[in-house]
Amino acid sequence: MDDRRSTLLQASLLRLVRRGAWEGARRLIEKSHPADVARVLDRLTEADRKQAFDLIRGADARSEVVAHLEFGARAELLGELDPAGAARIVRAMPVDDAAETLRELTSEQSDEILAELGESGGEIESLLGYPESTAGAIMSPEFLALSDTSTVEEAIETLRKKRDVDPSFYVYVVDDRDHLVGVLSLRQLIVQSSQTLLRDCMMQEPIRVSDAADQEEVAKMVARYDLLALPIVDAGNKLLGVVTVDDVIDVMQEEATEDILKMAGTTVEETAFPGVLRGSWIRFPWLAASFVGGIGGLALLSWFQGLLEQTVALIFFLPLILAMGGNVGNQCAMVVVRGLATGRIDRDEVLRVISHELGTGLLLASVFGVTLAVFAAVAEFGTALFPLAVGLGIGGAMLIASLVGTSLPFLFRRIGVDPAVAAGPFVTTAVDVLGIGVLFLVVELLL
Amino acid sequence: MDDRRSTLLQASLLRLVRRGAWEGARRLIEKSHPADVARVLDRLTEADRKQAFDLIRGADARSEVVAHLEFGARAELLGELDPAGAARIVRAMPVDDAAETLRELTSEQSDEILAELGESGGEIESLLGYPESTAGAIMSPEFLALSDTSTVEEAIETLRKKRDVDPSFYVYVVDDRDHLVGVLSLRQLIVQSSQTLLRDCMMQEPIRVSDAADQEEVAKMVARYDLLALPIVDAGNKLLGVVTVDDVIDVMQEEATEDILKMAGTTVEETAFPGVLRGSWIRFPWLAASFVGGIGGLALLSWFQGLLEQTVALIFFLPLILAMGGNVGNQCAMVVVRGLATGRIDRDEVLRVISHELGTGLLLASVFGVTLAVFAAVAEFGTALFPLAVGLGIGGAMLIASLVGTSLPFLFRRIGVDPAVAAGPFVTTAVDVLGIGVLFLVVELLL
Repeated sequence: MDDRRSTLLQASLLRLVRRGAWEGARRLIEKSHPADVARVLDRLTEADRKQAFDLIRGADARSEVVAHLEFGARAELLGELDPAGAARIVRAMPVDDAAETLRELTSEQSDEILAELGESGGEIESLLGYPESTAGAIMSPEFLALSDTSTVEEAIETLRKKRDVDPSFYVYVVDDRDHLVGVLSLRQLIVQSSQTLLRDCMMQEPIRVSDAADQEEVAKMVARYDLLALPIVDAGNKLLGVVTVDDVIDVMQEEATEDILKMAGTTVEETAFPGVLRGSWIRFPWLAASFVGGIGGLALLSWFQGLLEQTVALIFFLPLILAMGGNVGNQCAMVVVRGLATGRIDRDEVLRVISHELGTGLLLASVFGVTLAVFAAVAEFGTALFPLAVGLGIGGAMLIASLVGTSLPFLFRRIGVDPAVAAGPFVTTAVDVLGIGVLFLVVELLL
Repeated sequence: MDDRRSTLLQASLLRLVRRGAWEGARRLIEKSHPADVARVLDRLTEADRKQAFDLIRGADARSEVVAHLEFGARAELLGELDPAGAARIVRAMPVDDAAETLRELTSEQSDEILAELGESGGEIESLLGYPESTAGAIMSPEFLALSDTSTVEEAIETLRKKRDVDPSFYVYVVDDRDHLVGVLSLRQLIVQSSQTLLRDCMMQEPIRVSDAADQEEVAKMVARYDLLALPIVDAGNKLLGVVTVDDVIDVMQEEATEDILKMAGTTVEETAFPGVLRGSWIRFPWLAASFVGGIGGLALLSWFQGLLEQTVALIFFLPLILAMGGNVGNQCAMVVVRGLATGRIDRDEVLRVISHELGTGLLLASVFGVTLAVFAAVAEFGTALFPLAVGLGIGGAMLIASLVGTSLPFLFRRIGVDPAVAAGPFVTTAVDVLGIGVLFLVVELLL
């Protein structure tokens, strides 16, 4: 199956379901990959989704589709099933997917399903005990660990027996206290002679992450060291679980989307188009903060009323000056936010980054300051000193914007707020108010 | 090694190099992962980087470090070596990394190194023949393909012999014309009995992508179907290469960073802090476009000079109204851009998305329109109709901003421009000019 074919299959299935051609839809679902079926279900109305889901036969296939559903669609669908039916689907999932799914439900729904699962829900519950977005919360406790005194032959035999343990590219090696001491890829295992001891052919000191680490840390390690799976250990180096690369990819997409949307002043929930009311509610806090900041700017402007009435031409320049400040501020903020997220900027580099950005800001401020002053002079706005005033005004606003845009993300991280929140509306509003202040300070001094 | 230890190692190495303690640095480099060494080199000055690099012994270790270097640092370092020395490093790299590295050099440098490589550079050259960012350009032509009539035992024997073929989690199965007909994971291979024919135990119809597809398509397929590697085929289904998941992770990070920075009006090059001059030059086009748009807004405002002089209070409200329009416009634009990038929004969903965003925009416009009108009335700005005018003004600006912010990314994609370019300065500028127009239209009609 290639990309074109998968798109075609999805389009046909969508058409069949929307037309109510259930028999045709059922046949197409059987031929389709669960991920493709999930993508179609994501795009259906609630009622159609329920009916289409009922066409899928078998708890395994159903659980695979549910695991691929988007946030929102997944909670909605499971919420409609009775606890026993939902439990059947959850039981068929890998433990990490099951825990992720239960996190999306209300705690009542999740408790009902766990009660149905009984003892077999124990592993899921222990993952649910971790705070969201930690390594422990996203790891799978199903992995292959063998004693360092086992032979290669024993390892291969275990692989044959435990066919259902999913993450299967590495064999982890532990000592007699279950501490992680080594790792072997299947590839390395295959080429060894059968009587070699694992401790003699394993790679020592495997790269690992603590269960309390943030999931972003996991993603960074996997990306940096090109790993397919990362072992998760407790504070005493006891092996607890494994995060596989497919989950890391999900984490990375999620974190990138989250960052982008936070910078825009909204959240990841909006990408599912949650309806007008909910969508407005999500955006409201950011807009309200910006609104309040804007009222501050308004008050500042009205304070300068006398000045404004003397120099009406200043008004024409105000939106341009504020827009340029906002642009530069956001450029700085996003470079810093992304640098922090990908690990390109380290904690000890605040000064280096700020001085680099201030240098860039100064150069750009000079270029556009001179351009605007020349424009104002040629277009004969205001008095003789007026061009100088707007030139200095735009330059000052851009320079302050560089400083604010670069510093805010660092400051936010320092006080424990996601730096991405700093970019977008926050920077724009701060820059607006400061820009108005700078402009009128310059005008007051010059005119 | 865990995350803390890797951070500590890097910090010590950085300190040693900056202090010129070369002997200590050399010992630490020997103990460090090439990815960690590369991260330290990324952060050194050009001269220190060259000296530290000279401490690394052996072409293999050197090539691993170079492969992990960032854009910029890599080109700089290789550019300083003589072609023979650079060729030794490139030869030790996997073919896909080698091609990626040569793409970063000037075509002169790259040709010189290829000349040094001679015949062994053939595979690299064939990858260089693909346009940048296509599946063909990032694939590795080193993969394991076996005939469908081979046995499991023969497959394992081949694995033992070809220890150096890197992407080693899948065995691909081809027919007698080298067409891709199946796939087997190493795990599936291990558990089969040795005389089984591959065609009897392989998974048929493997998921694959055409060599001409965009690298984003590759990333989407790997993410959607949870793959560790994706086979790349030509139009006739002949197997050409494999893209492994570690390269996909790089692609995803790169694309997310690119999108974020384009939305801010800059490029990915800035995250390497390329110096004040270069940094300013990268940002200049976006700022200049925004500046020209701002001059348009300025002209529009000066056209309404008479109106402004009658209602000075209007001026106080202008920055707030434009900022709120810009915020809403960017929220819409980023939701659409990210939705298109992750595949959550499909091509045929333009109308659904626009109507959703317009609905949200209308609700938010009403809320903030009423709030601002009440504020203006309570604070006793302007004449009796004035609060109505600014309320309608902010509402109108926010509604138009929703439409513009949502439509521009779709429009850009339609004409073949990256939708991410639409967000940020572009939307802000368009919204500024339209917002000024709407506000004065309302004022003209009412006051």
